[in-house]
Amino acid sequence: MGESRNQWDGLIVGASLATLDGAHGYGAIENGALGWKDGLLTFVGPRDALPGDPITLADEVIEAKGWITPGLVDCHTHLVFAGDRAGEFEQRLQGASYEEIARSGGGIVSSVRATRGASEEELLVQSLPRARALIADGATTLEIKSGYGLDFDGERKMLRVARRLGEKLGVMVRTTYLAAHALPPEYAERADDYIDAVVEWLPKLHAEGLVDAVDAFCERIGFDAAQTRRVFEAARALGLPVKLHADQLSDGQGAALVAEFDGLSADHVEYTSEDGVKAMAAAGTVAVLLPGAFHVLRETRLPPLAAFREHGVPMAVATDCNPGTSPLLSLRQAMQLACTHFRLTPEEALRGATVNAAKALGLADRGALKVGMRADFALWDIDRPAELCYWLGGRLAQAVYASGRRLM
Amino acid sequence: MGESRNQWDGLIVGASLATLDGAHGYGAIENGALGWKDGLLTFVGPRDALPGDPITLADEVIEAKGWITPGLVDCHTHLVFAGDRAGEFEQRLQGASYEEIARSGGGIVSSVRATRGASEEELLVQSLPRARALIADGATTLEIKSGYGLDFDGERKMLRVARRLGEKLGVMVRTTYLAAHALPPEYAERADDYIDAVVEWLPKLHAEGLVDAVDAFCERIGFDAAQTRRVFEAARALGLPVKLHADQLSDGQGAALVAEFDGLSADHVEYTSEDGVKAMAAAGTVAVLLPGAFHVLRETRLPPLAAFREHGVPMAVATDCNPGTSPLLSLRQAMQLACTHFRLTPEEALRGATVNAAKALGLADRGALKVGMRADFALWDIDRPAELCYWLGGRLAQAVYASGRRLM
Ligand SMILES: [Zn+2]
Ligand SMILES: [Zn+2]
Repeated sequence: MGESRNQWDGLIVGASLATLDGAHGYGAIENGALGWKDGLLTFVGPRDALPGDPITLADEVIEAKGWITPGLVDCHTHLVFAGDRAGEFEQRLQGASYEEIARSGGGIVSSVRATRGASEEELLVQSLPRARALIADGATTLEIKSGYGLDFDGERKMLRVARRLGEKLGVMVRTTYLAAHALPPEYAERADDYIDAVVEWLPKLHAEGLVDAVDAFCERIGFDAAQTRRVFEAARALGLPVKLHADQLSDGQGAALVAEFDGLSADHVEYTSEDGVKAMAAAGTVAVLLPGAFHVLRETRLPPLAAFREHGVPMAVATDCNPGTSPLLSLRQAMQLACTHFRLTPEEALRGATVNAAKALGLADRGALKVGMRADFALWDIDRPAELCYWLGGRLAQAVYASGRRLM
Repeated sequence: MGESRNQWDGLIVGASLATLDGAHGYGAIENGALGWKDGLLTFVGPRDALPGDPITLADEVIEAKGWITPGLVDCHTHLVFAGDRAGEFEQRLQGASYEEIARSGGGIVSSVRATRGASEEELLVQSLPRARALIADGATTLEIKSGYGLDFDGERKMLRVARRLGEKLGVMVRTTYLAAHALPPEYAERADDYIDAVVEWLPKLHAEGLVDAVDAFCERIGFDAAQTRRVFEAARALGLPVKLHADQLSDGQGAALVAEFDGLSADHVEYTSEDGVKAMAAAGTVAVLLPGAFHVLRETRLPPLAAFREHGVPMAVATDCNPGTSPLLSLRQAMQLACTHFRLTPEEALRGATVNAAKALGLADRGALKVGMRADFALWDIDRPAELCYWLGGRLAQAVYASGRRLM
């Protein structure tokens, strides 16, 4: 007992490890051992390479079966919002057109209205189950965007709720300022004026510690390249990294634009050209694939996967959890959709939800199982890693740990 | 206390009810009450129509929020099998052709080999988590097919495991004899001889109480119409209802064939002709839609939904849970896929997983919330029924009851 402060806090033995350590492959270790102390991994290897009897090494030793992967990193979500849009989803399936839905108050405007109308507490209460669902299916790091407030108080409220979710649930939340998500009704026909406001709010919110990165929706139905550039310049002035909703519905040269700013990621990227891909490769910008929206909107245009592979652009996969186009409450299900719709291999999908997703958030301390990295991991009731991309539904996660603390 | 045997066993108040009572609509009751006794529903209505103070009416009174639906009925599964085919799924995504996979021992043959090789106990242990996953997402009745044994002992073992799953988990399992699923290797080139055996095994298994219905795989790559007819005649001789894997990959007139035998259901039915639809309507045969296989195989040919609607053919939705083409562990996710891929409305999808699925199994005592029906229901953490079809992932079921007993 007197020596326990020299011991690891915990040690899991027996399960196989998908370390994702190295540039290719699962980094598989059968009959593995994973130790941690003070929130960081202290041992990753085969059980029989442990430096002693497990019970002498750690305060708690757990015998396990199945596979351990790094905790999943959901690098693109809009999970803080009020209301839901299941009613609109139903209307659409009953034959209503997008115009009819918009006229009856649906679309993103309805999320903006509900989010503006909710108190910070209400917004927290409504968003909690979504964050919990993502964690229950293996996520230990969540990116959360603003973008349904579209005014100073609303954006601030969303970012505060995002921060509080992380504190409450014991996971890291990375916040992204996405005021340039859509034009709010009060700025109709005045998009440039709205961008003035977006640029003005940013330093204030950053000063409150609410902004880790900056994003925009660059699209014919969103903001144009010049407007996006102004937002990015405001970010750069504060030393904040940028990312972009780029080339989802048309080739708006978004990928090249975000690469020009050494952006963390270009997201969606269905219509990105080969030049855009090359620019991303040169800048080290990650391609974040969002198969949930592709699935729900029944898109057919695939992202340029062959070009990403050829030019060495890392691919991430995220839920895009949002009420309009991607009501996904599981990153594992996004991985399934990425394999089915985009033909990613299970290994690419798992890298996309771990090591490459961490890269898309600028985080070097997670996404793989390696001594010194954060003790973020999930224990799965599976016989091989590909099962994570194979099953739809089910409860595969047996345990989820963040910083060595068991979340479920 | 002396009067408690006159009271209901349980009563839930406060949640809204989607009774599905009536030919159309959700049969919604806001702020409802649901009472049961001895496994059957004793009260279904608005809370303020209760005949007295809740605590005087039932031994246990539960205050709830959200929605209550009938317990889901999964009317088409192959969930009893050994092994999984995630490795094959991965090989395919790595670029292997079906031929290469078959040569390396993959395909249905690998499930047959693993299932034959497993003991009854092993098969039970491997199948339990799948049945539990379906129940955890709201299912209270499961149809389970044989068809990976393809010899007498193997088919018997599968059907015994199916029965034991129902007993162990407290849900009703309806067994379906599907020895005519594929041609086992030892009968290569001798399909008619194999059908002789299939027909010979059936009465023996039926005598053991293991068969509730009979099915076959009628397809160019399965059995032809004449062979299917022989299986159906054997079923009819025993008074057993039939159903059919029909018209999945081509129009093999399967729907018309099963309708001719007054079949419970024609399943898959992507290629069913309008004549087939009319025959189904005349016979009262249910169309069982299986969007999981459609999703995984990336099919594009939609079932003739307009014709089903026009001719009044009831549509059911099922998981088709199987290791090769539909690794679905949630009927709710099948509903999501049915809405996304087939454009069913959420109401059609919910009817398809409840009242119409019960009809596809010949069960009149479940699938709706109605006094006298089985007290099978699920309580969901949702604001409107359409959410069941809207979210991918997540843990929406708060409680699941079968025959008035809480399963989770
Ligand atoms: Zn997004
Ligand atoms: Zn089937």
